[in-house]
Amino acid sequence: MLEKTDLSLTLDKKVYKSELKALKSRLEELQLKIIDMKIPVLIAFGGWSASGKGTSIGQLVLPLDPRCFNVYTMSPSHDDLYHPFLWSFWNKTPEKGRIAIFDRIWTRLALPEDDHGIKLTDKERDGFYYDVNSFEKQLTDDGCLLLKFFMHISKDEQKRRFKDLIKNSDTAWRINAEDLEQNKQYDKYIKYFNEMINETSKPGCEWSIIEADDIRYAVVKIYRIVVSSIEAEIERRLNPPALPQKPEPKSKTKPILSLVDLSKTIDEDEYDKKLDIYQNKISELGYKLYAKRRSVVIVYEGSDAAGKGGNIKRVTAKLDPRGYEVVPVAAPTLEEKNHHFLWRFNKKMPKDGHITIFDRSWYGRVLVERIEGFCTREEWMRAYKEINDMEQHLSNNGTIIFKFWLQIDKDEQLKRFKLRQENPLKQHKINDEDWRNREKWDMYDLSADDMFAKTSTPYAPWTIVESNDKKFARIKTLEIITSELERRL
Amino acid sequence: MLEKTDLSLTLDKKVYKSELKALKSRLEELQLKIIDMKIPVLIAFGGWSASGKGTSIGQLVLPLDPRCFNVYTMSPSHDDLYHPFLWSFWNKTPEKGRIAIFDRIWTRLALPEDDHGIKLTDKERDGFYYDVNSFEKQLTDDGCLLLKFFMHISKDEQKRRFKDLIKNSDTAWRINAEDLEQNKQYDKYIKYFNEMINETSKPGCEWSIIEADDIRYAVVKIYRIVVSSIEAEIERRLNPPALPQKPEPKSKTKPILSLVDLSKTIDEDEYDKKLDIYQNKISELGYKLYAKRRSVVIVYEGSDAAGKGGNIKRVTAKLDPRGYEVVPVAAPTLEEKNHHFLWRFNKKMPKDGHITIFDRSWYGRVLVERIEGFCTREEWMRAYKEINDMEQHLSNNGTIIFKFWLQIDKDEQLKRFKLRQENPLKQHKINDEDWRNREKWDMYDLSADDMFAKTSTPYAPWTIVESNDKKFARIKTLEIITSELERRL
Repeated sequence: MLEKTDLSLTLDKKVYKSELKALKSRLEELQLKIIDMKIPVLIAFGGWSASGKGTSIGQLVLPLDPRCFNVYTMSPSHDDLYHPFLWSFWNKTPEKGRIAIFDRIWTRLALPEDDHGIKLTDKERDGFYYDVNSFEKQLTDDGCLLLKFFMHISKDEQKRRFKDLIKNSDTAWRINAEDLEQNKQYDKYIKYFNEMINETSKPGCEWSIIEADDIRYAVVKIYRIVVSSIEAEIERRLNPPALPQKPEPKSKTKPILSLVDLSKTIDEDEYDKKLDIYQNKISELGYKLYAKRRSVVIVYEGSDAAGKGGNIKRVTAKLDPRGYEVVPVAAPTLEEKNHHFLWRFNKKMPKDGHITIFDRSWYGRVLVERIEGFCTREEWMRAYKEINDMEQHLSNNGTIIFKFWLQIDKDEQLKRFKLRQENPLKQHKINDEDWRNREKWDMYDLSADDMFAKTSTPYAPWTIVESNDKKFARIKTLEIITSELERRL
Repeated sequence: MLEKTDLSLTLDKKVYKSELKALKSRLEELQLKIIDMKIPVLIAFGGWSASGKGTSIGQLVLPLDPRCFNVYTMSPSHDDLYHPFLWSFWNKTPEKGRIAIFDRIWTRLALPEDDHGIKLTDKERDGFYYDVNSFEKQLTDDGCLLLKFFMHISKDEQKRRFKDLIKNSDTAWRINAEDLEQNKQYDKYIKYFNEMINETSKPGCEWSIIEADDIRYAVVKIYRIVVSSIEAEIERRLNPPALPQKPEPKSKTKPILSLVDLSKTIDEDEYDKKLDIYQNKISELGYKLYAKRRSVVIVYEGSDAAGKGGNIKRVTAKLDPRGYEVVPVAAPTLEEKNHHFLWRFNKKMPKDGHITIFDRSWYGRVLVERIEGFCTREEWMRAYKEINDMEQHLSNNGTIIFKFWLQIDKDEQLKRFKLRQENPLKQHKINDEDWRNREKWDMYDLSADDMFAKTSTPYAPWTIVESNDKKFARIKTLEIITSELERRL
């Protein structure tokens, strides 16, 4: 593919100047529409070293208002290397109405070694490509306009540019051994890059190859694609395709949550004894996790007043406070709403060696947001796969995932609500919304059923925890966490 | 000081249990007041290795709701090392109504070498202590409750704990050569720590020394101090001391801005020629900055429509977009309002080797916020010193600072406002507020006068840029930036 590109294409200086002027003023206008229509735009650059990425980005941002774009250099920071590799990409995805420009994307994946310098197996590379395609699809499904430019130059041109840069003592440092290697092994790299372009050109997420031996030609081609793609996106939004109305599927079976045996209890003495044992064990396991740089994600879901907070406290009681974080999840802020719904959770994922406990989670999408109509049917239907892909990506990174559903029955909930209202220290934990949610008990049962069926995976299984007896529930979660961690570490 | 501490203090297990239980439930209550009264609390731990910081923090957070506290391990990240050393502390300061717990604070400063392993001169150490004390004073002046605990253990006890940790293969990795060195040279370290405690115990920011050979004694002492300090802070807020009313000082001299010669112009040809020269020069200087890891901060202030945006674009036109960021400053968000006013700016400070351009800045505090009454008189009066200290801290880090005031006269402003209203592409740049600000022209003149007088420092001087002729203004800023950078690099 790259071999067949015609790199002799050039643009006369005069034509360049007048074309660029027109394109710039068009982009200046379009940017107001992007803000107005709240379109998130991601423009990513890949390609050879010294292929003119910096120059192209520099030209592209000139007509843009600094209030609505960001340029990101994507070479991984120290922190990035301690997270799943998509983490840093997720963090930098554009808010609605903003343009994010990535300097470098995915080219690193093309190489036979990863960021840590470890040789990749075919299976690992396939995993990477799967994750990349899923990430891009999630963004575009969510309304993001994604443009990817591969800056292509010839071997001779690259050599010439390296020479020029090295001649000047102020720019010589920009060229390192890896860059020179690229030129020496140009043909091998073409093979890598071809594969990467092939593997990551899915519908709506295709690469545009930019002939960049002549930088003027390259800049104008990029501008043209940017301008026409934004125009097309605006047009698409003004005339959205009609979606077929599908009827809500009806479940014929009894919901699984109605079948849970909530009579299970534990006696006081056994509780005290086991609590002590497990808490000491989990504390030790926490240090082991840190030493082995493995991370853990624990998700708590369940009805209101099911005892999530108290359960979490029993898990963390003897953990080193520097090794874990509890993330309470409430309604998204405005900024969070202006991103893909997984953005805010991705940001909170643990650094390798750490534990993050989510008190409610991304499953809100297929529970409360589905039930209350906070998102469209199409959005929550899509969310099951998006969630599975995210958890698989974590798991590929070595993260150990627990998902607990704490279940109580309606009578028990009523009892606990009343207790909360009577206790001045706990009154802040109960409000009108809790009472309203209670009326939707059956819809939660149904949604939870779908959720268990679609998101219980080998790498991230659900556990339903019988929680009418809080103490029983605490010991059960501690038991599962400690035994699984012992098995995996 | 530390030598005289009585480390034989212990607490009986039974007393410990009952005391702790009472203190925990008191802290649980107080936390609701902290949220209600929007008190920011910062609890910081310093002290010897293996002195029980982790255990103490673990106990302290048990009664707290995860919704309102964060624990931070303060060992510097890679990113932290590329910023002024207070940067990471600023980033983690608590929002109003939240508790931030720092594991380690300032102890690193006590050592004869800095984070990069470079030996410190006395002058540098004095600079560090000045910056630390200024930082702490800014937080407490802003209403933050600051508690600092120094965990003190004896040489023998430390040795015993190291042995225990090393014996167990799961914990052995927690002890490194530096820790062992601390025990070997215990007496020397006492001297360092004493000095640090002395230098950073200013009124309202004193260290509490915690006798920690007996961890039970330590935990209860910490709890008592935390509980009583919060109680005192609540009391203080309910009965604030009356502030004396001072009359607004009246300036007798003509404001400096009224004396600026706005007739200066540049002719078209000279402009084109110089623009080209300076833009090429600044582009090269940008790479030099990066190679030398020096950072640059450029502040733009001035009347509405003075041409800040256009001026900034001429500065950045040929800069590598990966090396600079333009930060447009608007009204603070709710989260930003819940922090010290400098918090949001500190977060945006450039990484070493990069340029950050602020389109409006922290000077809003002593301009619009002073004039509109968005902060108290006491707050903006205090701000001059806070700003100077922040800029000095940047300058100590090697950051080169430019501050430009773009000045136009009232007639020129009116002309530009009208032009904006007529141009559909620029209508979004003008609103009612701009017209209202225009009516307060004289008050801005007066405030700017005070600002120039109080914040023009050798390390961060102001330049007034005559901007009735936009082109003249652009060349003037470019000239100043390039010549100063050439001098400093």
